[in-house]
Amino acid sequence: MLLRMSTLFLRTLREDPADAEVPSHKLLVRGGFVRRAAPGVYTWLPLGKLVLDNIADLVREEMNGIGGQEVLLPALLPREYYEASNRWTEYGDTVFRLQDRKGADYMLGPTHEELFTLLVKGEFTSYKDFPVVLYQIQEKFRDEARPRAGILRGREFHMKDAYSFDIDDAGLQRSYDLHRGAYVRIFDRLGLKYVIVSAMSGSMGGSASEEFLAETEYGEDTFVRSTGSDYAANVEAVRTPAPPHLPVEGLPEAVVHHTPDTPTIQTLVDFLNGAALGREFTAADTLKNVLVKTRRPGEAAWEILGIGLPGDREVDMKRLEAAVYPAEVALLDEADFAAHPYLVKGYVGPNALLANKLRYLVDPRIVEGTVWTTGADQHDHHVVDLVCGRDFTPDGTIEAAEVREGDPSPDGTGTLYTARGIEIGHIFQLGRKFTDTFGLDALGPDGKPKRVTMGSYGIGVSRLVAAVVEQSHDDKGIVWPRSVAPADVHVVGTGKGEQIEVAVRLAEELAAQGVRVLVDDRKGVSPGVKFTDSELLGIPTTVVVGKKLAEGLVELRDRAGGGHSEIALDATVATVAALVKDA
Amino acid sequence: MLLRMSTLFLRTLREDPADAEVPSHKLLVRGGFVRRAAPGVYTWLPLGKLVLDNIADLVREEMNGIGGQEVLLPALLPREYYEASNRWTEYGDTVFRLQDRKGADYMLGPTHEELFTLLVKGEFTSYKDFPVVLYQIQEKFRDEARPRAGILRGREFHMKDAYSFDIDDAGLQRSYDLHRGAYVRIFDRLGLKYVIVSAMSGSMGGSASEEFLAETEYGEDTFVRSTGSDYAANVEAVRTPAPPHLPVEGLPEAVVHHTPDTPTIQTLVDFLNGAALGREFTAADTLKNVLVKTRRPGEAAWEILGIGLPGDREVDMKRLEAAVYPAEVALLDEADFAAHPYLVKGYVGPNALLANKLRYLVDPRIVEGTVWTTGADQHDHHVVDLVCGRDFTPDGTIEAAEVREGDPSPDGTGTLYTARGIEIGHIFQLGRKFTDTFGLDALGPDGKPKRVTMGSYGIGVSRLVAAVVEQSHDDKGIVWPRSVAPADVHVVGTGKGEQIEVAVRLAEELAAQGVRVLVDDRKGVSPGVKFTDSELLGIPTTVVVGKKLAEGLVELRDRAGGGHSEIALDATVATVAALVKDA
Repeated sequence: MLLRMSTLFLRTLREDPADAEVPSHKLLVRGGFVRRAAPGVYTWLPLGKLVLDNIADLVREEMNGIGGQEVLLPALLPREYYEASNRWTEYGDTVFRLQDRKGADYMLGPTHEELFTLLVKGEFTSYKDFPVVLYQIQEKFRDEARPRAGILRGREFHMKDAYSFDIDDAGLQRSYDLHRGAYVRIFDRLGLKYVIVSAMSGSMGGSASEEFLAETEYGEDTFVRSTGSDYAANVEAVRTPAPPHLPVEGLPEAVVHHTPDTPTIQTLVDFLNGAALGREFTAADTLKNVLVKTRRPGEAAWEILGIGLPGDREVDMKRLEAAVYPAEVALLDEADFAAHPYLVKGYVGPNALLANKLRYLVDPRIVEGTVWTTGADQHDHHVVDLVCGRDFTPDGTIEAAEVREGDPSPDGTGTLYTARGIEIGHIFQLGRKFTDTFGLDALGPDGKPKRVTMGSYGIGVSRLVAAVVEQSHDDKGIVWPRSVAPADVHVVGTGKGEQIEVAVRLAEELAAQGVRVLVDDRKGVSPGVKFTDSELLGIPTTVVVGKKLAEGLVELRDRAGGGHSEIALDATVATVAALVKDA
Repeated sequence: MLLRMSTLFLRTLREDPADAEVPSHKLLVRGGFVRRAAPGVYTWLPLGKLVLDNIADLVREEMNGIGGQEVLLPALLPREYYEASNRWTEYGDTVFRLQDRKGADYMLGPTHEELFTLLVKGEFTSYKDFPVVLYQIQEKFRDEARPRAGILRGREFHMKDAYSFDIDDAGLQRSYDLHRGAYVRIFDRLGLKYVIVSAMSGSMGGSASEEFLAETEYGEDTFVRSTGSDYAANVEAVRTPAPPHLPVEGLPEAVVHHTPDTPTIQTLVDFLNGAALGREFTAADTLKNVLVKTRRPGEAAWEILGIGLPGDREVDMKRLEAAVYPAEVALLDEADFAAHPYLVKGYVGPNALLANKLRYLVDPRIVEGTVWTTGADQHDHHVVDLVCGRDFTPDGTIEAAEVREGDPSPDGTGTLYTARGIEIGHIFQLGRKFTDTFGLDALGPDGKPKRVTMGSYGIGVSRLVAAVVEQSHDDKGIVWPRSVAPADVHVVGTGKGEQIEVAVRLAEELAAQGVRVLVDDRKGVSPGVKFTDSELLGIPTTVVVGKKLAEGLVELRDRAGGGHSEIALDATVATVAALVKDA
């Protein structure tokens, strides 16, 4: 491959684009890799297309390596299949919807579980046919509310999505592990720094699920890590360690106090500490009861849910949403309180909820034998020394409280701290959610139908272009890893005709050796501009054919390490070809 | 590449799909290359994806060969750019439209002239930057009224679209010629039988334009060819040769006759021949005047158009539409006749039209000195011996009359006959239609802006898969040309374990030589089924490891030629590798 800058469809920019905030967005636009076409919608210019293709090929290679078979599904997805899985409704505003000329509804595919399930159902019928792994590399569409950061979060983007089909759970685990291994190899080959975090599966349903997050300060995914171990997890997936149960014997009786004008935790704590009750109260001693309502998909009625958590913690809505998924969550309105007059705003306690058969779930820290100050279910009253397991018994636990830096790590080693990353891959054990919907069975060896179980595995191919740049750049430009660079070598001819002629000859000889070459053969462009462009474009190796040509020397530059060295012109092709081959 | 049928995601079908009418549709579904996902929307299964990729790579190679640079534009196209070119309106029902969550309008890209023009305008500014050829291979969307014939006419399909930008007409001609040459090489390498026909450019506007049509009886494009030359053209593009003008001197006076109850050509001819006028009349002696109305884009008012043509010919609506494009055409209704009482239904002549300043265009055969019988603009009256150029002078000519088998070829050699084909490529000299819309200028050497001129060039990549099958199949299945076949060799192991083991070993050895291999390693499948599948799938070369294995022999089969031969097992890898390499 030989690209000539004299004719290449490329104009680099000296200024950052006005709408760009993150390095990858700035550099990919300035380097002429992408151009914005509409909000969250980008055009790939020649160099950008090469990078995108390199990443896609690398992904393809590893997917083929685990026996994945490449197919290609349409972007236009008929409504009926998504009605069956209820995702036509669940997706809400996040997908693009359209009608054809006959009024039939379609969505533009954001992910393809439904069609893959139907595809396999159409072809495979026997347990002997399984396992099978199918994948595609395809443009996807999501109507993001706030497309941002260039190609990091676009509305039209490239994904590799794979789906595994197995006849039993052990098979699914094997398929899952194969994908996990392939993903590790892919991200390692891309030279990325990443963590694998436990994840909730969001709208995908299902059980085991991990995310691959490329670590970067501009990532929009927050995750937590342990100071003392490899533990890393999405905030939604953090499981709060429950303290040991305590004996309830000998604990003082619960007593209701008149606590005028104390509807908030702070006013309550201040009142109690001013009331000379013989001990000091903190927010952590109080039991805050947050009321929400939830509604399961397809149902009309909302159900009230009381959530009890220590008074020094807030409810994290994303954790709450993940905990109740696939039900949706809303706050109570005045009508709800009017319909349930025993719920006294600001003074709700466990017992009014439990006595009225409303669902009451508590933070895992609230275990038997813990002692709480909480609402007494009447205005201006709280109860002190209410004991869990003695005075009230919750319906269960829920992971809805915020996770804080310094919280103990769920694996028992170290404490948690927060980091940011870009989601580059996601693997799910979907289980039978979609195969149940569409009745995908395989005839077992005993002649009986067996429900197939399924995994789904995504990689953000276009997002990876940005993730690589986020992790691999300096103040001068991009530093492409060789595995994805648009070329191996950038031959820069500076100055007058002869140097450019030699640069072109070198480039042609290198290309003949199978090296992918970009040659700067532009005339009338200063060496300074050429070097600036070269650093911005970030090709791993640069060969400068400049003033020393008269002495038979060219300069070799290493973009990543910054090293320079002079080598004999005659030795250049062999040296560079060997360097590329060994890399 | 080594594909194993024991694990391949492939189930062939013995029956034609119920909705399939054309061979390519039947065979691509039966062979497990594609599956229908929605009307006109298809999924590509592993073997189909390989064929599609092979064709795309071949197209890519030839496009790169003429200096084309590959980019990738989005499918989501914002309305504003298409408003500017008026195509937001012109496309009518033929595109998919949608709104994002903010209510902004988009269409799914059917073709990308607007965005390419803007893209080039954003980067290139000087005459030194040109010419440039950009292309993409991408999924396109069109909301066909009647999607049909499988992937031949789908609603989501793959196209290569290229755009050339030049600073002058000579440059555009060079870019056009380069594309024409590349297209010839592409279709030749695909082994297609095709013709290049002059074409009207339809909604693309512009001037010079040719279509590449793959000849097949199931093609939906009709074109005409000459019996005596290479002339071929779309019916819309046929230019009727005009006869020489004749002297008007000495021709008899025009006479109005009472011709009661003769509103049609046939009743008129019958009446005249019964009226003892001293000569025999035929339909070809009469001048039929057809009234339509046209409306230019963006205008509210319709304009009446009279079309004069020999009475033995009908108006061909597609030719008429192409002739008046971009105006639209409609028939007159009662209100139009009421508003123009001098237009006497069934008896319209040239003179009422011309006297009332209505536009009157005639078939090119109606030249000065030709003598006609036509309507006299009063009920039950016709005029005989009305002479063109003496008694009426039309406003010009129009190509609206039907083209018939036996018409003289426009190039003067032979006569025309009708054939059918599939449009596989289309090249246009667009000129400045889009560069005018978006003001794409290049600064000339004189420092003055020069309007850039543009070409656009399409190849239906997914349609080519079907076109190849249409031309290359027999009653047993597909016969893939090696250039696009999903594999070079199909190794079929029949019978018991040992034959399959040897087949797999052969396949692995061939794959190690760089041969693309599909091996039938299925156990418990009869040789008959395997042979039937092999013929259906249509891999160019088959190696059968069967009963003769005991004698150290395997069988070599040529799918296209049908030849069989036995060769020594030991020589198989070398023989087949050489055969593939030489092809």
